Amino acid sequence: MQKPSTERAPLSPTRFEPKDAAFDRRIRDSFARQALMRTIGAELMRVEPGRVEIALPFRTDLTQQHGYLHAGIVTTIADSACGYAAYSLMPPKSEVLSVEFKVNLLRPAKGEKFLAVAEVVKAGKTLTVVRADVFGIDEEDQRELIATMLGTMICIR
Amino acid sequence: MQKPSTERAPLSPTRFEPKDAAFDRRIRDSFARQALMRTIGAELMRVEPGRVEIALPFRTDLTQQHGYLHAGIVTTIADSACGYAAYSLMPPKSEVLSVEFKVNLLRPAKGEKFLAVAEVVKAGKTLTVVRADVFGIDEEDQRELIATMLGTMICIR
Amino acid sequence: MQKPSTERAPLSPTRFEPKDAAFDRRIRDSFARQALMRTIGAELMRVEPGRVEIALPFRTDLTQQHGYLHAGIVTTIADSACGYAAYSLMPPKSEVLSVEFKVNLLRPAKGEKFLAVAEVVKAGKTLTVVRADVFGIDEEDQRELIATMLGTMICIR
Amino acid sequence: MQKPSTERAPLSPTRFEPKDAAFDRRIRDSFARQALMRTIGAELMRVEPGRVEIALPFRTDLTQQHGYLHAGIVTTIADSACGYAAYSLMPPKSEVLSVEFKVNLLRPAKGEKFLAVAEVVKAGKTLTVVRADVFGIDEEDQRELIATMLGTMICIR
Repeated sequence: MQKPSTERAPLSPTRFEPKDAAFDRRIRDSFARQALMRTIGAELMRVEPGRVEIALPFRTDLTQQHGYLHAGIVTTIADSACGYAAYSLMPPKSEVLSVEFKVNLLRPAKGEKFLAVAEVVKAGKTLTVVRADVFGIDEEDQRELIATMLGTMICIR
Repeated sequence: MQKPSTERAPLSPTRFEPKDAAFDRRIRDSFARQALMRTIGAELMRVEPGRVEIALPFRTDLTQQHGYLHAGIVTTIADSACGYAAYSLMPPKSEVLSVEFKVNLLRPAKGEKFLAVAEVVKAGKTLTVVRADVFGIDEEDQRELIATMLGTMICIR
Repeated sequence: MQKPSTERAPLSPTRFEPKDAAFDRRIRDSFARQALMRTIGAELMRVEPGRVEIALPFRTDLTQQHGYLHAGIVTTIADSACGYAAYSLMPPKSEVLSVEFKVNLLRPAKGEKFLAVAEVVKAGKTLTVVRADVFGIDEEDQRELIATMLGTMICIR
Repeated sequence: MQKPSTERAPLSPTRFEPKDAAFDRRIRDSFARQALMRTIGAELMRVEPGRVEIALPFRTDLTQQHGYLHAGIVTTIADSACGYAAYSLMPPKSEVLSVEFKVNLLRPAKGEKFLAVAEVVKAGKTLTVVRADVFGIDEEDQRELIATMLGTMICIR
């Protein structure tokens, strides 16, 4: 039986060295200032060097015309997770901005909640390339991959 | 002086022939069912064969950490505009879904309001390629290009 | 009748101001050093501030399994055109590199020759966003849009 | 020390079930008809359900202006690998075409040879989403990740 989404390899354990020992605090402070995260009910979960997870409970006021989570909201949590995964490796007093991203919507965004898992692919001095998978999670805690992002973040000093 | 955003060519007058005379009604009904559009305060503006515009007034509860409109919300209105631009050329009783899109964030998303202008590049039987420009508009009605999207929509019959 | 590719608006007349009066020479020298351009038979055509065109005659040794031009070669001329369109606005002694690009393949790459037309969307100090259209041109000089690219170039000083 | 490219998780073992027992033969026949692969000297390596590898020895006639492999050639082998990874899961008598892809160029394309490793992310009836990593390999057989692709392929019956 073909189960690509669940049989996919887990994202790699990162071995990135942060340039700022206070990266966790810096990210949590920044996340708290993203008013949109509160508005949609998103929550910052794991924060590690080069990897960040953001969770979002399903809400009917965030849906598209068929009742699924709108692709723009799927993108929103993936983008914030990518931005903070990149930011975790940036030096103190820097800022992070999204340069561009590409998203493939793989399945209808169904689920009780959603989890965006972002991972740095390549950290550079100016540009950091990041990818994220977004999972829909049902009431039995089964994950299904619903979208994947590949993007570029920039470090502003 | 270099003014790329204002000197850019206007999007082309479309000459697409809709396959469904009731395309305007069909799009407005679908837009009304996108709960997220109400949640963020987005409004469906012009609807033409192969082109759709969506406006969004700035709101502080839609911002990222620097106080600008979050890239995910920029993407949300661009994606909905692209989806409906594609949908305007699809036959009756079809549905439209986003396959994928790519967004370049060009400038900080500043403005009193925002306008996403989507235009079909190529309409196919199954897949339709669409692009959108998103403008920030200040209190003097000056437009600045803040993001551009290139994406693919699919027709579900 | 629906003719999206020919009825599309012509790319805008650029009003970009080059930072290097010798941009044309600089681009032609760099193009001459791209060995791949010779290998595939590509030719640098118009060079203007913020816009560059590259032509490629069809050759059977550049095809994919159905006898059309391979998507990788379509991408090759689009990428070089985008890179040089960005480079036309960069200062003396800088270098240009591709950060990323996204390509939509719109129609089979048929034609006697092909033309990639690249245009700067937004020129920044470090990053420049560029788009390109690639046309297939038949023996009667009719153009058909076969692919479109949206990409990011970086200026190395 | 930060070594993202070598410490990244290996691509997952695929558990995809092919719909055509003769997928290997079908892919090798199609590859042999891609004239461009011969022209650039690319070689089809591993073919598994949902995963395909293509190797390319470095050649100076495939370079850009700094002497590295041209991004268009990096894209060419990634695109063919992605297309065939998708094709490995398609039914008999189908054809595969690239719909779109996005490439991030991560490092200068240096190496004695290059390897594109493509893996299906989600196989659908019509559309298949695929990703590929391209590695530069030096004379000591050390791999470095130089580019990553995320793309969409379509099945034509």
